Amino acid sequence: MVAEIKSLNEECGVFGVWGHPDAAQLNFFGLHSLQHRGQEGAGIVTNRNGRLKGHRDLGLLSEVFKDERELIRLSGEAGIGHVRYSTAGSNSILNIQPFLFKFHDEELALAHNGNLINAVSLRQELEQDGAIFHSNSDTEILMHLIRKSKQDTLIDRIKESLNTVKGAFAYVMLTPDALIGALDPNGFRPLSIGQMENGAYVLASETCALDVVGAEFVRAVQPGELVIIDDSGYRIETYTDQTLLQICSMEFIYFARPDSNIAGVNVHTARKNMGKRLAEEAPVDADMVIGVPNSSLSAASGYAEASGIPYEMGLVKNQYVARTFIQPTQELREQGVRMKLSAVRGVVAGKKVIMVDDSIVRGTTSRRIVQLLKEAGAAEVHVRISSPPLKYPCFYGIDIQNQKELIAADYSVEEIREKIGADSLSFLSVEGTVDSIGLKFDAPHNGLCMSYFTGDYPTPLYDYETDYMKTLAKIRESKPLMV
Amino acid sequence: MVAEIKSLNEECGVFGVWGHPDAAQLNFFGLHSLQHRGQEGAGIVTNRNGRLKGHRDLGLLSEVFKDERELIRLSGEAGIGHVRYSTAGSNSILNIQPFLFKFHDEELALAHNGNLINAVSLRQELEQDGAIFHSNSDTEILMHLIRKSKQDTLIDRIKESLNTVKGAFAYVMLTPDALIGALDPNGFRPLSIGQMENGAYVLASETCALDVVGAEFVRAVQPGELVIIDDSGYRIETYTDQTLLQICSMEFIYFARPDSNIAGVNVHTARKNMGKRLAEEAPVDADMVIGVPNSSLSAASGYAEASGIPYEMGLVKNQYVARTFIQPTQELREQGVRMKLSAVRGVVAGKKVIMVDDSIVRGTTSRRIVQLLKEAGAAEVHVRISSPPLKYPCFYGIDIQNQKELIAADYSVEEIREKIGADSLSFLSVEGTVDSIGLKFDAPHNGLCMSYFTGDYPTPLYDYETDYMKTLAKIRESKPLMV
Amino acid sequence: MVAEIKSLNEECGVFGVWGHPDAAQLNFFGLHSLQHRGQEGAGIVTNRNGRLKGHRDLGLLSEVFKDERELIRLSGEAGIGHVRYSTAGSNSILNIQPFLFKFHDEELALAHNGNLINAVSLRQELEQDGAIFHSNSDTEILMHLIRKSKQDTLIDRIKESLNTVKGAFAYVMLTPDALIGALDPNGFRPLSIGQMENGAYVLASETCALDVVGAEFVRAVQPGELVIIDDSGYRIETYTDQTLLQICSMEFIYFARPDSNIAGVNVHTARKNMGKRLAEEAPVDADMVIGVPNSSLSAASGYAEASGIPYEMGLVKNQYVARTFIQPTQELREQGVRMKLSAVRGVVAGKKVIMVDDSIVRGTTSRRIVQLLKEAGAAEVHVRISSPPLKYPCFYGIDIQNQKELIAADYSVEEIREKIGADSLSFLSVEGTVDSIGLKFDAPHNGLCMSYFTGDYPTPLYDYETDYMKTLAKIRESKPLMV
Amino acid sequence: MVAEIKSLNEECGVFGVWGHPDAAQLNFFGLHSLQHRGQEGAGIVTNRNGRLKGHRDLGLLSEVFKDERELIRLSGEAGIGHVRYSTAGSNSILNIQPFLFKFHDEELALAHNGNLINAVSLRQELEQDGAIFHSNSDTEILMHLIRKSKQDTLIDRIKESLNTVKGAFAYVMLTPDALIGALDPNGFRPLSIGQMENGAYVLASETCALDVVGAEFVRAVQPGELVIIDDSGYRIETYTDQTLLQICSMEFIYFARPDSNIAGVNVHTARKNMGKRLAEEAPVDADMVIGVPNSSLSAASGYAEASGIPYEMGLVKNQYVARTFIQPTQELREQGVRMKLSAVRGVVAGKKVIMVDDSIVRGTTSRRIVQLLKEAGAAEVHVRISSPPLKYPCFYGIDIQNQKELIAADYSVEEIREKIGADSLSFLSVEGTVDSIGLKFDAPHNGLCMSYFTGDYPTPLYDYETDYMKTLAKIRESKPLMV
Repeated sequence: MVAEIKSLNEECGVFGVWGHPDAAQLNFFGLHSLQHRGQEGAGIVTNRNGRLKGHRDLGLLSEVFKDERELIRLSGEAGIGHVRYSTAGSNSILNIQPFLFKFHDEELALAHNGNLINAVSLRQELEQDGAIFHSNSDTEILMHLIRKSKQDTLIDRIKESLNTVKGAFAYVMLTPDALIGALDPNGFRPLSIGQMENGAYVLASETCALDVVGAEFVRAVQPGELVIIDDSGYRIETYTDQTLLQICSMEFIYFARPDSNIAGVNVHTARKNMGKRLAEEAPVDADMVIGVPNSSLSAASGYAEASGIPYEMGLVKNQYVARTFIQPTQELREQGVRMKLSAVRGVVAGKKVIMVDDSIVRGTTSRRIVQLLKEAGAAEVHVRISSPPLKYPCFYGIDIQNQKELIAADYSVEEIREKIGADSLSFLSVEGTVDSIGLKFDAPHNGLCMSYFTGDYPTPLYDYETDYMKTLAKIRESKPLMV
Repeated sequence: MVAEIKSLNEECGVFGVWGHPDAAQLNFFGLHSLQHRGQEGAGIVTNRNGRLKGHRDLGLLSEVFKDERELIRLSGEAGIGHVRYSTAGSNSILNIQPFLFKFHDEELALAHNGNLINAVSLRQELEQDGAIFHSNSDTEILMHLIRKSKQDTLIDRIKESLNTVKGAFAYVMLTPDALIGALDPNGFRPLSIGQMENGAYVLASETCALDVVGAEFVRAVQPGELVIIDDSGYRIETYTDQTLLQICSMEFIYFARPDSNIAGVNVHTARKNMGKRLAEEAPVDADMVIGVPNSSLSAASGYAEASGIPYEMGLVKNQYVARTFIQPTQELREQGVRMKLSAVRGVVAGKKVIMVDDSIVRGTTSRRIVQLLKEAGAAEVHVRISSPPLKYPCFYGIDIQNQKELIAADYSVEEIREKIGADSLSFLSVEGTVDSIGLKFDAPHNGLCMSYFTGDYPTPLYDYETDYMKTLAKIRESKPLMV
Repeated sequence: MVAEIKSLNEECGVFGVWGHPDAAQLNFFGLHSLQHRGQEGAGIVTNRNGRLKGHRDLGLLSEVFKDERELIRLSGEAGIGHVRYSTAGSNSILNIQPFLFKFHDEELALAHNGNLINAVSLRQELEQDGAIFHSNSDTEILMHLIRKSKQDTLIDRIKESLNTVKGAFAYVMLTPDALIGALDPNGFRPLSIGQMENGAYVLASETCALDVVGAEFVRAVQPGELVIIDDSGYRIETYTDQTLLQICSMEFIYFARPDSNIAGVNVHTARKNMGKRLAEEAPVDADMVIGVPNSSLSAASGYAEASGIPYEMGLVKNQYVARTFIQPTQELREQGVRMKLSAVRGVVAGKKVIMVDDSIVRGTTSRRIVQLLKEAGAAEVHVRISSPPLKYPCFYGIDIQNQKELIAADYSVEEIREKIGADSLSFLSVEGTVDSIGLKFDAPHNGLCMSYFTGDYPTPLYDYETDYMKTLAKIRESKPLMV
Repeated sequence: MVAEIKSLNEECGVFGVWGHPDAAQLNFFGLHSLQHRGQEGAGIVTNRNGRLKGHRDLGLLSEVFKDERELIRLSGEAGIGHVRYSTAGSNSILNIQPFLFKFHDEELALAHNGNLINAVSLRQELEQDGAIFHSNSDTEILMHLIRKSKQDTLIDRIKESLNTVKGAFAYVMLTPDALIGALDPNGFRPLSIGQMENGAYVLASETCALDVVGAEFVRAVQPGELVIIDDSGYRIETYTDQTLLQICSMEFIYFARPDSNIAGVNVHTARKNMGKRLAEEAPVDADMVIGVPNSSLSAASGYAEASGIPYEMGLVKNQYVARTFIQPTQELREQGVRMKLSAVRGVVAGKKVIMVDDSIVRGTTSRRIVQLLKEAGAAEVHVRISSPPLKYPCFYGIDIQNQKELIAADYSVEEIREKIGADSLSFLSVEGTVDSIGLKFDAPHNGLCMSYFTGDYPTPLYDYETDYMKTLAKIRESKPLMV
């Protein structure tokens, strides 16, 4: 039963605006620039004259708001929005956010990016006490806590509740009177404040969403902070002083958009630096460097620049989404892979190729890409990964815990190389990764969460303690890694 | 009235297969890799035991075949498919191909990539003679001619008809007994023959579609040729010997996929060469080279490589399609532009930038991108175009004739530079373009059609003679160009 | 092959209006009242300032025009519309009418109710001569003939063409200048002219459509007539004087709406008279009379009134359309029948019931209804049919030719009674039917076509000659009928 | 705020089955026969091996289950279903039932027909205590009460909760182990138990749903009863002995299907008796009796039979649903009315007509129908209503409380007659109604709730007390009624 009610708020994107007559349309623009953070569903709730109303559905943002009249119906002066990550099997409109709650005495809308690690036990406690949940989502838990709280003001009830939930969260909330943002004590997920020309304030998971609506960056929300935006401007409050910055390194490695800045660092630049460092750490003689589109192109160009080896377009990604029907034959399955990614025969044939990718999870994708390159005539394929081996699950919202097999948890680098059919394989070191991203905070790994690489989690694991122990046992049984 | 029945078969993609039990599925894969050639509609007709059946609709391929059962219903041993380019205003399912004709004495399906230049007069003649057209499409004209022909065999009727239509065409046809391809006497559009492991033959607009289904390239169909594929293999016939190879240069410049080869030349390599040549022809001192994604990335990397200036990701294209609602305010319209393309502030701020693009049509897009870069803090923006100025309409299928204003037909390079707000602007020369692509045929421009740049059309213009004269007059009135 | 291109314009409804600013909306109202004549598809073409435009699709009228904006887009001062009858298997949007033809020198829209009997041979002749058909529909044939005609005026070309097509037809046509109606030489299908308060003229298959738009009945179009309506009013022309009125008796028996008048006779009244006559011809002692809803309720009330036996509601039809999925078990199939029609146990239990129905085609429906009544406890079920036994196919548009088995062609009345499980069974006589409907024309059966009952067709059968001979042979081999 | 969270579970239909391998399909059949009880939305929850799953959506049942695969996905051995009545404005999928609740310690699905009268106060109390509601529906209230209850067993928790909710309710519930039905202490809504041949038990709002699945009627659930069905059969328990049977008389008058039996009385027969009694109470000289289709046909035939005046089909209802777009002109609005209902000119012209209808709410519909008949030429129209004047709102689930104007609350019969344009008008008396329905229970009005006619409500009104007092005041101010 626990499995079924596991939390579902993994990678997602949130957005909010207060004080602009086109709040619904701005949410649409902002969420569109965050679409890479979640494709399962999307929604917007707006506030017009103190009344909240919303629309949400399964599908891409452009499908959810296919009928422009939905945006017109949502016209208002403030609003929050959410794009939701697709996880297999349990996609239901009930889990699509923002959630809009209407009580006889207050209205509140809520959207969440992150993953609670005590969600299962909190939910059971609340249910024992009579609570009814209508979704599989973590997000409802916060609402139950807020309503149960006996504090005097809504802000105090929210603060009390934020001290009860554990894990990773960036919340945006909308009430008839205010737009509220909140970040967990480790700041695992980014959340930025921006301001538009007319004075309106904006909250967004990534700064690319500030850019798209023409907002200037004001500041990032810090761990343990609450930002409250209303007609008098914005103010910062804190709900805890037990904070320790641990920004998710995967945001830099592959998740965020290259034009976003996180903690003052541009994502493309961080990736290019990882590629450069990788060229130093793991050089190899070759005719060209190619990147796996799209997330590894920055690292590949960094590798090329540092190594002096030409950067070429050896792999082409089809920009149109391919339907993946179940294919009855092996031949059709292979063609299905080529629908999404093609090797450029005219470029790679007869050449020694360095293929840069950002990470290896199960190894199957890497194996297929190496195979594509070899089928297209590549003489040698040297795989260079611009991050360390993924060996431990993430409990803070990166969808690694669902991967049954983290190949690097079970196999050595040499074994992985053999499995993916590469002529050589190297990963970027943990230090190289931290140095390339270049944060300077006084915290472990300079403020980065590197737990999927190191197994050192910055918080207790609560409901996930058992899962972790299993993974750890598995890794300890496997042969020593050679990284 | 003529305007209304103007031909609509502009850029498109065609595919065909004979002799494979998964013909419908292979068409789906092949057409998906040709989706960039047309997004308005798609269709597939297959042949099972000599009976043809088809499905076509408006929308992307994955929408047209959203329900997998459609592909199952179309199961057969041979098939042809088509993706259709979107032109404003007249999109009707009636124009979506392949067309499937069932007569009391024969069945035939037909798909077309190209543009006839005597379509209007042929259609009027046919209508005077009692013909009824059900679409606005050129493609029906060939069918009427085939049915009117008094030749003995279908192949002879097709040959006679191919000598009547003028302009650019790559046809694929399916009958109960054969798959047929045909190319116009100038070979404006590419059409390649491939063969799969099981012996099945494939026809495709681009070689990337051969790759996706795992077919080996056999040969390109040549000008004036007819290829007839049936259970005994393939054979080549010719319907005219008045041929002159004039491959559309825009296929290399921006239209085809970088992993395709045309006339033996890889498209990515051709583009990279254009970038290199451009660096030689129009050097400039700068901090970085950036390409306008996605079609100009190859040229930009070539420019960077030849100039030694670092290649950076200064522009990010949103990989998700944005709905473009009508925006009531100027502010919303600008945000709408940023939804599709963002400048990376963290990369370009304070820098001198070389922005490489493949072409300038009306100049509005270039102006917006320069503006995006400057808003993101670029100190200087030097625009380099990897092809010559577009001054003349295309009548062979590239959608330039619909552009009311070819900016280069009216303005000098300096005037264009001023209009788009660039700090400097240069185009690649005609010679540079021809050399970079590197064809070696004994024909004008080594086998390339460069008419949009030079005004020298390789054929008489038939129904379009007047349009051309107007454009020519306009250009002659304008100030001398400085290219 | 002939089977595949068989004509499909069977029972349908047509409507037209000239001279009213709400022409599209009036078509919508009028077609909705004719929806019982065809549920497969619907369409409307309107004329605004001499330009024709249209919309058509598969589905009920309310589905085809689900988006009100379609009607707004079609706003104009004249229009024609069509509802199409659903025949299994070949439903394609290409067959949905009205057809809108745009030539370089004229525009014309065309809709058709009826069935041509020389369609196959005409189509073959036209195809031999180079014509291309885009639908399986008869209606295209007329358009080809009109375009081939060398007469001077459109009206003369239409007249010539109407003399070439044979069978049953009520055409409505729309040009930039006129609304035109035409009826076949036997007047098989009804077509009426009405006039609205503002002077606008209306054409409609049934007078109920005149009522719904508030038009006064002006006159019925007569066999061999053409009615031409334009801004100067309406005028009647004739294209042949070889006419013989033979109105389809099935329009009165079950097809038309009870509130329509045909040839001056109200359909409900005709049916009630058939019920009265049936009570005289085939009396039986019973507790109640019930009708099979909805088409037999008038006849049942007539039977009750004439016999003095109470009229009860013993069968209830579900007013909501039931989806008929394929049911895997016999039990589910029987429940599926009950979804559509229920016997009222509280009414019929223990009673002797007279069940009045309008016709028996294959006998399966009658068998099921008798079974429903017996399961609900009816002590006796006496079936009375308010028309004669159906023994011969209809070639003029009533969907009898598709019925593989006309039970009355093979079996005697006693055998049918046994098969359907009734305690007694009687049909109305041919004379009784003719007398009850009460036409007074100087023509066989007073102007009624009774060929499905008698086998005497009022015209040669052209392409259907062979089919008829087979049926006739089958009937002659069967045992003598006892009617 | 209260208005917004007002209860929405008005007229609806419920169904349930336990012990049949085709439980989902049986729900589909059963709900289809109950579709007249609610057209806004529909849903089914089934139980396979103790796991519940469901599907629900807005729209007619056939739309909700358009894709047959939904039913296949729901295959199971037990299930409950619901069709929901359409009330303007607040239709959201969140309110569509059955509701499926999954807790960490139990699963339960719930569907409700009726209306709670203390819903608003219960909801406020529960929210004060931390409860979160996700719909506007009453039904959630019961679930909260069940979860809050500290009783030992689920059945005891349900019993305690049923004693807290007040008003009208027929609940069906599904757990992994049982199918449960419950009726309020007044039995306002019908709920019947049936048994299928294979022993499976069925619950349904009306007996017509038992008939459609071939189930035999076992017994009606009685006021204050709980029926628990599991693999060991069915058993009856009671949760209160404070019961008083008060079946909703509107079920007999217009709401239920004529083939259903309620409390042992067939609905068609009850209506026919009302018509007969009306003929005695309010005779009039006329040429024919006509009924307003479909709900008044039984009463009309009763009137005809008792009076000896012929029953005719003077009004025809279009069996196809008409879209009611907003019509910009008065002419179009009148045509819109005629789309739905037509007067048969050929029947009524020149005749004195008795028009029988089941009720008058606001009077606007009656006025339109009288007008239709007069436009069609009726010489006189005598309106006879087969129930007493509606003067008081219903708080138990009949959608009268939403009607802003009950015409009979404000006007005398003579005034109403004048407003609707009838030549005479009479209503059936309260006594006549009670006698015609013919219940024999030892309770006010023999067990019928007649409160909309008399203002005597069988229960305290709780949250609605104020509304009632307003209506009462209004009625007392109006002139004395002449009934």
